Amino acid sequence: MNDSTLHPARRLADLETPALVLDQDRMQQNIARMRTSLARFNVAFRPHVKTSKSIQVARSTLGQVSGPITVSTLKEAEYFAANGFTDILYAVGIVPGKFDHVIRLRRQGVRLTLILDSLEMAQALCDKGRQENMCFDVMIEIDSDGHRSGVVPDSPELLEIGRCLATGGQHLAGVITHAGNSYNCRSIPAIRQMAQQERDAAVGCAERLRAAGIVCPAVSIGSTPTAMFADNLDGVSEVRAGVFVFGDLVMAGLGVCRQQDIALSVLTTVIGHQKEKGWIITDAGWMAMSRDRGTSRQPQDQGYGLVCDLGGELLPDLLMVDANQEHGVIAHRSGDPAQTPDLPIGAMLRILPNHACATGAQHARYHVVNRESSDILEVWERFRGW
Amino acid sequence: MNDSTLHPARRLADLETPALVLDQDRMQQNIARMRTSLARFNVAFRPHVKTSKSIQVARSTLGQVSGPITVSTLKEAEYFAANGFTDILYAVGIVPGKFDHVIRLRRQGVRLTLILDSLEMAQALCDKGRQENMCFDVMIEIDSDGHRSGVVPDSPELLEIGRCLATGGQHLAGVITHAGNSYNCRSIPAIRQMAQQERDAAVGCAERLRAAGIVCPAVSIGSTPTAMFADNLDGVSEVRAGVFVFGDLVMAGLGVCRQQDIALSVLTTVIGHQKEKGWIITDAGWMAMSRDRGTSRQPQDQGYGLVCDLGGELLPDLLMVDANQEHGVIAHRSGDPAQTPDLPIGAMLRILPNHACATGAQHARYHVVNRESSDILEVWERFRGW
Repeated sequence: MNDSTLHPARRLADLETPALVLDQDRMQQNIARMRTSLARFNVAFRPHVKTSKSIQVARSTLGQVSGPITVSTLKEAEYFAANGFTDILYAVGIVPGKFDHVIRLRRQGVRLTLILDSLEMAQALCDKGRQENMCFDVMIEIDSDGHRSGVVPDSPELLEIGRCLATGGQHLAGVITHAGNSYNCRSIPAIRQMAQQERDAAVGCAERLRAAGIVCPAVSIGSTPTAMFADNLDGVSEVRAGVFVFGDLVMAGLGVCRQQDIALSVLTTVIGHQKEKGWIITDAGWMAMSRDRGTSRQPQDQGYGLVCDLGGELLPDLLMVDANQEHGVIAHRSGDPAQTPDLPIGAMLRILPNHACATGAQHARYHVVNRESSDILEVWERFRGW
Repeated sequence: MNDSTLHPARRLADLETPALVLDQDRMQQNIARMRTSLARFNVAFRPHVKTSKSIQVARSTLGQVSGPITVSTLKEAEYFAANGFTDILYAVGIVPGKFDHVIRLRRQGVRLTLILDSLEMAQALCDKGRQENMCFDVMIEIDSDGHRSGVVPDSPELLEIGRCLATGGQHLAGVITHAGNSYNCRSIPAIRQMAQQERDAAVGCAERLRAAGIVCPAVSIGSTPTAMFADNLDGVSEVRAGVFVFGDLVMAGLGVCRQQDIALSVLTTVIGHQKEKGWIITDAGWMAMSRDRGTSRQPQDQGYGLVCDLGGELLPDLLMVDANQEHGVIAHRSGDPAQTPDLPIGAMLRILPNHACATGAQHARYHVVNRESSDILEVWERFRGW
């Protein structure tokens, strides 16, 4: 359907734009940094594949084995299971409308772990298990930072849910939490503090369950910032993280990676100018970048992205300042037209994204390059939808 | 790949969520309103299919004929041409890197019209035409409101480009403009004024070219707001518009449609609660809604969307206030937890989008219903990517 498939391009310069580019060297370094960070602790690693939705990226993350993964949709579970990944945590609260899909996956041999955070759902799962004569693996979701779902750590509901599952013939696999608020931290000490809070909440809940005589084997925590900067993971059995694999401008703004570590970019072509305004018009709009403006909540707003040359080198203070569906507007951070470099029509650029999960989701494939050259080494498919 | 394909669901309530829902009755009324508005004038209608990226929606818009369309990517041109649409305007500035794709489409018999706004590109197109012995149909893009691309109406470059094309063996098909700033208007009179400005700029440029002895057959203008409220289209030959077909909260905020005219919604399921905060957690996050927050720039911010019941009826003052990748947070506009209705886990809702083009782009298919029932009448594919 797409030119890069019909007539494989050999170099980025031969691609029709916009197109998604993945710097394999940077990705491998990002993976190595996370694995080194986690090697300080006696924990398993269960990467979140919602960022890449790519078999090749997931295998690279796990050292070429089909190890444990975290998914955000049952479609991801289905896709990764079809490609040899069988130990899968579905990290979004289960609902009855998805039971039959879960059962199909289980009957295909997928070891699919579910999560929930209410007695209501625990009861419904027990009923379904009895009805289908099936024992589900399920974790109780803990709210460690008030940002989204989960039971409050010291709530009576934690024990009620634990008892319901234990006595209802289901397998309580453990407790799970995600410190999503770590994305809003403003310093590394704040991230360390959030990591401690995330660990303490989850381990504390596991201990409350055990003290009540309820078996709670696993403690699953994680976010890219907390996984990278945790000082203490005592009692934690597994860590999840996703966006670290590519990095993005939000992570760079947090200090979790450097701008030059960002492995994902969108290749675009200069299609025109508004010289008196200092605008460079490109063919990468919000459809190619996504509407994600995560850095707008950070001390330094990076617009829709930072601009690099075809080789991936940053062009100082050049910003994607606006986006229409298939048009991008690039300008100098100062707003001074005289500062905008002269980039002719046809020039190719690479834009670093605010949020790798959101930008990647706009594309059907990765064009894989390395740092030294812009030869396309491989084309990796990614999938979308539900 | 998707359950609704493997095991066609008969009713919305049987769908696995999130899923995209299209109310066919509302869409037909939106189409009728636009056609009635344009029937006041002697103009052709060239709908922009970037909103729907759907053959069935495009045919419905054109009264079941494969009439003239506007596209935002060459992939759209390829897809619609393969489905019988042969009169296609590619409304993004052409660049040399896309010439070969354009030529392939032309040789397939597609009457593809290109646009450009610089002497540099006009010259490059003439050179390519000479080299390939091909006469391209090309329009000069006019900047009628300073929002994006195009030559300034009274610029010398307008005539230079016109002469270059006319003497370079290419076919100057006309002038084109898009009053994108109409999306930022704050009243209907302001939209009428913008429509007049859009018409005057484009017709004025055509007259300048003609006065200089350059044949300029067509004048193409349009945006949903200006097409709906124009008072005078004298000298205009065709009107383009896209988002009107579905409508969205940005258009409703502008007064271009009513909230109850919005034909597109995202079906979601309640997966949990944070009762003390008055939060309802759903399985439609930004992946299903997009990150588009167009209404945040309007007098009334609608968050990530307004909430309807399964039947499409608005639930008063209920808002999608936050989004993670696969989680949505719904709360009462007042922020008062006591005001949040009691919606149990498993309850299904439909969220009206800020921007139909952006929300639609997150999905692979439309589940078509009518207003009276939530039976799924048809499933229409939409395509993505470049």
